[in-house]
Amino acid sequence: MSVILKAIRLCYDFRLPASTRTSLAINYYNIFHKNISTAVDLPQTMASEKILPNIFQFVDKNINSYKSLLKEAVAIPSVSCDVKYRDDCVRMVKWMQDKLKEVGATTELRDVGFQTIDGKEVKLPPVLIGTLGNDKKKNTICVYGHLDVQPALKSDGWLTEPFELVERDNKLYGRGSTDDKGPVLGWLHAINAYKGVGVELPVNLKFVFECMEESGSEGLDALLIEQLKPAGFFNDVDYVCISDNYWLGTTKPCITYGLRGISYYFLEVECAKMDLHSGVYGGTVHEAMSDLIYLMGQLVDKDGKILITDIYKSVAPLTESEKSLYTNIDFDPEAYRKSIEAPKLAHNGVKEQLLMHRWRYPSLSLHGIEGAAFQPGAKTVIPGKVIGKFSIRLVPNQEPEEVEKLVFEYINKKWAERGSPNKMRITAQSGRAWTENPDHPHYQAAARATKLIYQTDPDMSREGGSIPVTITLQEASGRNVLLLPMGAGDDMAHSQNEKINVRNYIEGIKLFAAYLYEVSKLPK
Amino acid sequence: MSVILKAIRLCYDFRLPASTRTSLAINYYNIFHKNISTAVDLPQTMASEKILPNIFQFVDKNINSYKSLLKEAVAIPSVSCDVKYRDDCVRMVKWMQDKLKEVGATTELRDVGFQTIDGKEVKLPPVLIGTLGNDKKKNTICVYGHLDVQPALKSDGWLTEPFELVERDNKLYGRGSTDDKGPVLGWLHAINAYKGVGVELPVNLKFVFECMEESGSEGLDALLIEQLKPAGFFNDVDYVCISDNYWLGTTKPCITYGLRGISYYFLEVECAKMDLHSGVYGGTVHEAMSDLIYLMGQLVDKDGKILITDIYKSVAPLTESEKSLYTNIDFDPEAYRKSIEAPKLAHNGVKEQLLMHRWRYPSLSLHGIEGAAFQPGAKTVIPGKVIGKFSIRLVPNQEPEEVEKLVFEYINKKWAERGSPNKMRITAQSGRAWTENPDHPHYQAAARATKLIYQTDPDMSREGGSIPVTITLQEASGRNVLLLPMGAGDDMAHSQNEKINVRNYIEGIKLFAAYLYEVSKLPK
Repeated sequence: MSVILKAIRLCYDFRLPASTRTSLAINYYNIFHKNISTAVDLPQTMASEKILPNIFQFVDKNINSYKSLLKEAVAIPSVSCDVKYRDDCVRMVKWMQDKLKEVGATTELRDVGFQTIDGKEVKLPPVLIGTLGNDKKKNTICVYGHLDVQPALKSDGWLTEPFELVERDNKLYGRGSTDDKGPVLGWLHAINAYKGVGVELPVNLKFVFECMEESGSEGLDALLIEQLKPAGFFNDVDYVCISDNYWLGTTKPCITYGLRGISYYFLEVECAKMDLHSGVYGGTVHEAMSDLIYLMGQLVDKDGKILITDIYKSVAPLTESEKSLYTNIDFDPEAYRKSIEAPKLAHNGVKEQLLMHRWRYPSLSLHGIEGAAFQPGAKTVIPGKVIGKFSIRLVPNQEPEEVEKLVFEYINKKWAERGSPNKMRITAQSGRAWTENPDHPHYQAAARATKLIYQTDPDMSREGGSIPVTITLQEASGRNVLLLPMGAGDDMAHSQNEKINVRNYIEGIKLFAAYLYEVSKLPK
Repeated sequence: MSVILKAIRLCYDFRLPASTRTSLAINYYNIFHKNISTAVDLPQTMASEKILPNIFQFVDKNINSYKSLLKEAVAIPSVSCDVKYRDDCVRMVKWMQDKLKEVGATTELRDVGFQTIDGKEVKLPPVLIGTLGNDKKKNTICVYGHLDVQPALKSDGWLTEPFELVERDNKLYGRGSTDDKGPVLGWLHAINAYKGVGVELPVNLKFVFECMEESGSEGLDALLIEQLKPAGFFNDVDYVCISDNYWLGTTKPCITYGLRGISYYFLEVECAKMDLHSGVYGGTVHEAMSDLIYLMGQLVDKDGKILITDIYKSVAPLTESEKSLYTNIDFDPEAYRKSIEAPKLAHNGVKEQLLMHRWRYPSLSLHGIEGAAFQPGAKTVIPGKVIGKFSIRLVPNQEPEEVEKLVFEYINKKWAERGSPNKMRITAQSGRAWTENPDHPHYQAAARATKLIYQTDPDMSREGGSIPVTITLQEASGRNVLLLPMGAGDDMAHSQNEKINVRNYIEGIKLFAAYLYEVSKLPK
């Protein structure tokens, strides 16, 4: 690492003012560009144009406004899984629509119908569709993001109010800060920065921002495949970019070319039409909880090996060349372990094994039980009906239908062995795994942009999580899809005390601006 | 059954007016008293005094006011397990204090200190202590009841608002209607009825009404044993009566001489300091849920047999004479099964086996898991820390300390076999079983009162539930303790749609009045 690179990092560590950071960055940019001798190919026009250095300078001058806009967005509790926040979801979508309008996009809110909750029809929040620019000479990028968040209560163990963005130690804490309001605003700020330095946006943009991602993206697939695609929305799209994931660790950026799928199960056992008093009924009924715990106990062993017959059979075989890839990935198992304070990691904490079990092998997690006692204290209930929740993260080449069949057969077999007189029912919701070719020019363009911002070649990585819309967008557009993370691996999306580092947020805005620039140089 | 008895029952079935019922009851009372030829001995003075017939008439005239007072009490959501209702608990206690004052009792609210919740000290609701009458010639009865309720939400599956008393089909639906606000008000109405007919109460009364029964009666034992007993509160108490349980079935009254105890366990497993995203972390951690489900799966088999080593060893052996008792109890397994819509009962639905497993054998129930996903929908969390809840109903001669030791040893052994690197911890709260001698004159007095109201000898029964204060009151007073149920076996205490039958509520008031009368005739 050069002295200047070190200096830039230290600027962050010692909280030096933005102006110092910017001038160091521009210095670095010039030096870097003159002495280029890396695997990444930088466009020759950039140095003379000075567009990106000016944009970076603009971004560093506007940090406070970026923080306050994120604060506004986080303050809207757009929790999609709980209908009592449905109005907030709609408010969030409209808030973002106004922001897109302000940068000149044409927008529309698309009605995607209803969802059924407890037998009632509940209106889904609309999907925000936008278009900015229509220049036939430019490449067109379709950007996807989501405006909804996971539930969060201070009493869950948050140190601050979850829906109030709070800065501490150069981190911005708040629900949605990293998943996915920060990245969505990142696109907005990047567009604004081009405007701010008086440069025309080098690409056309199309936006798909939904507010149901954390709840299965209900209604979105139908909109994309059955309405937007036939109407030609994707006809001029050249590339698709999603920023809804995280670096692998906390220091090195990455670009993501693979996601696991998910097969989520609802395993229901009923022993009575209502909950029963355990004193009055205990000893006289076949308890549903006992049956459910038995079934849930048959799914996975203590080391995480899935016990469902033939479940590993269709998993893509590990080649020697793939195996070698994991060795070079920047991933520190001990830092990962410490960040979650786990007593011990699986697979004896061996780096390559951990990465493979995160990315290329399926995993099964037991999430919880609906209908049983969950409150603190000593509730003495015999639940009448309980629904166990578990899911399997799917990998290439596992087909959801095949996995569901194996799970159903296995559960039915175990249920027959149990011989309980109770009622059992299992249902599933699934989405397949996704991978792209990381050697595609689109990935190389994103890698150049990343190197420009973070002064290091990004890792080409996969992720353990699932973003089903990735596959839908790939199918709907027929184009290369890329996942460009903004946040860091310890951002605690879905968990208590979710945050985004100030550095990731601000450099992320520059990264998005640079990415738009790099993609503009790709052939149409 | 005589024609008149049938007529009285039909009055209820066909909703005849109270006046018709009362005159039939008085007719019956006269006939019954003249032709007495049963095991139950009626006091010879009653017919000439006509006190009870007058009281019954008074009660039948005041049904609407009894209902509206119960409506008031149910409307106060005095949920003791959730601190957000703590003010309502205090309000409920004060409401009842006012009612006791109105009938002439001297009352006081006793501070019982604090409870610790999540490391915070929370003030407990006060215990309401009352005294009515101080005539040395009269017997003194100590009456216990509780003013708190189990939690209830309409969304749990209630057909009406849980905290709004609603009458339908001669049933009063509402949380606390039968457990235990209805019975507590029953005492009040019985006292009022004596006043209403201008007759002096034949006994002295002492009241202990608490508001933490559903949450382990925190603070009550210390108050009774360390404060009230040394201060002489129990010195003049001759008998103790608790109405906080139910008939065995739906038609035949009973008096209860035994309760199971309870040993409640909190089984905690921790794999990380926070909840984790199952996509990002699945496959890399030893999941706490998987360990907990394993441990919970080792506790009981599908037929309800407890698997904990030696757990049945100290259970009182079944004698031939005890065995024969169960044959004569009025209990219909098929009606019981239908009332909860269970596919099949345990022990092949054999009556004697069911009664024994409710009353004289321990049972183990798995109640739920704190810290795991419990909401509807597909939450993809790996819980960081989970607490499994289960309990064992204890029976004579199981000592709580001995049972806890067996459970701890068993769980520790299974945990060692599991070999998980996670942290496991188990804690317990326990109270022992209770039995009294049902041949005691106190029980015979209650049996006479019951027969007078319901025209049938009550079953002398035990219960599967636990009311730990029963033992404390037995110890504190050194007197015979009796459980006199008001509600029916299908009242669904602790469950959705809790109710009390109008018949049980109104006849229960008469029963309490008759019980006070009968006990007044017992020797001091």
